[in-house]
Amino acid sequence: MLKLYGFSVSNYYNMVKLALLEKGVPFEEVPFYAGQTAEALAVSPRGKVPVLKVEQGFINETSVILEYIEQTQPRPALMPDNAFQRAQVLALCREIELYIELPARSCYAEAFFGMSVPEAIKDKAKAELLLGIASLGRHGKFAPYVAGESFTIADLYFLYSVDLACAVGGKLFGLDLLAELPKAKALLKTLQEMPSAQRVAADKDAAMPTFMAMIAAKK
Amino acid sequence: MLKLYGFSVSNYYNMVKLALLEKGVPFEEVPFYAGQTAEALAVSPRGKVPVLKVEQGFINETSVILEYIEQTQPRPALMPDNAFQRAQVLALCREIELYIELPARSCYAEAFFGMSVPEAIKDKAKAELLLGIASLGRHGKFAPYVAGESFTIADLYFLYSVDLACAVGGKLFGLDLLAELPKAKALLKTLQEMPSAQRVAADKDAAMPTFMAMIAAKK
Repeated sequence: MLKLYGFSVSNYYNMVKLALLEKGVPFEEVPFYAGQTAEALAVSPRGKVPVLKVEQGFINETSVILEYIEQTQPRPALMPDNAFQRAQVLALCREIELYIELPARSCYAEAFFGMSVPEAIKDKAKAELLLGIASLGRHGKFAPYVAGESFTIADLYFLYSVDLACAVGGKLFGLDLLAELPKAKALLKTLQEMPSAQRVAADKDAAMPTFMAMIAAKK
Repeated sequence: MLKLYGFSVSNYYNMVKLALLEKGVPFEEVPFYAGQTAEALAVSPRGKVPVLKVEQGFINETSVILEYIEQTQPRPALMPDNAFQRAQVLALCREIELYIELPARSCYAEAFFGMSVPEAIKDKAKAELLLGIASLGRHGKFAPYVAGESFTIADLYFLYSVDLACAVGGKLFGLDLLAELPKAKALLKTLQEMPSAQRVAADKDAAMPTFMAMIAAKK
């Protein structure tokens, strides 16, 4: 059986978990907090979550895991078959990750964990976030899903990266990042109401106290 | 015919260009400097290079373009067919991009263009670069190629991201990032000597004066 290593507070972990739930693939969740210990680095070379354990070994990187699942468990499809349409879905995923998730992530410590982030990093993150959201507004279809009529892996990135980015935008910069994208706001709500997303959210809520205690112990 | 939009100084552009040359696919190069003009954003939603123009429209994001080329022009293969092996190649690409290219890139302005980068950003980049290189040392095979016996798209990332990251490491932090990875150093040399890579390098050298003049005009 597939084993998903990670923890339920991780938004990247939750992208993969939702994909597996939507595909109806059986999997086992293995608690794994990553980090730079020798044990963690034997699972993930950069000490990150999630990791998927398959018969031949470990697979790292959310985007790669999602493609592997798609290749090996193609139905229900979370990506189009057509090469050009597939490329648009993948590009939307990458654009959300590189231009929204990553700048927002550079501010998570201050937005969510009571630490402070240097002004230079926040200034850069704010400028990049605004460009990233504008890019999503240009490339995203929101008809009603990110890439068009069907739910795809771009919606996984949207659901689990853009919600956190919006929280960073609000808390640190007083910005409503989706103010000019009402269809994106509506999609976020639609996705959050999916039964599989509600299960993921419940698991996240349940795991949060332990996670926050770990963060507090590290401070 | 495929049209590759971008400019020869861009390392991402050169990854795609080398892939097309290695596959022997005919393509036309279209000078495109991206940016935030309406014209540029109609080609690339985030105003980045490279972009591949195909019959149906534009494809953005280097990683996506490389996969599209692989899917539509499968031979010679630059990725394994086997799903698990393919995932390892893709993970190496992603690890090089996220954990080496991106931190190094945050310092390009100071390392290459005579501008200054805030200390907080340099401190973060240095720490991340060291972790990224260590990760590559753990996951990379260098036997002799990054992912094993065959040249793959992971070698494109390695060639065009790790060389610049090494330059950043040397110029800004006095570090030889590959000091403990002699096989990686040897591979960099092997890759640089490929005829297609030499053509890409010659085009880059020829394009550099114009690019530096553009940078100087923007300062």
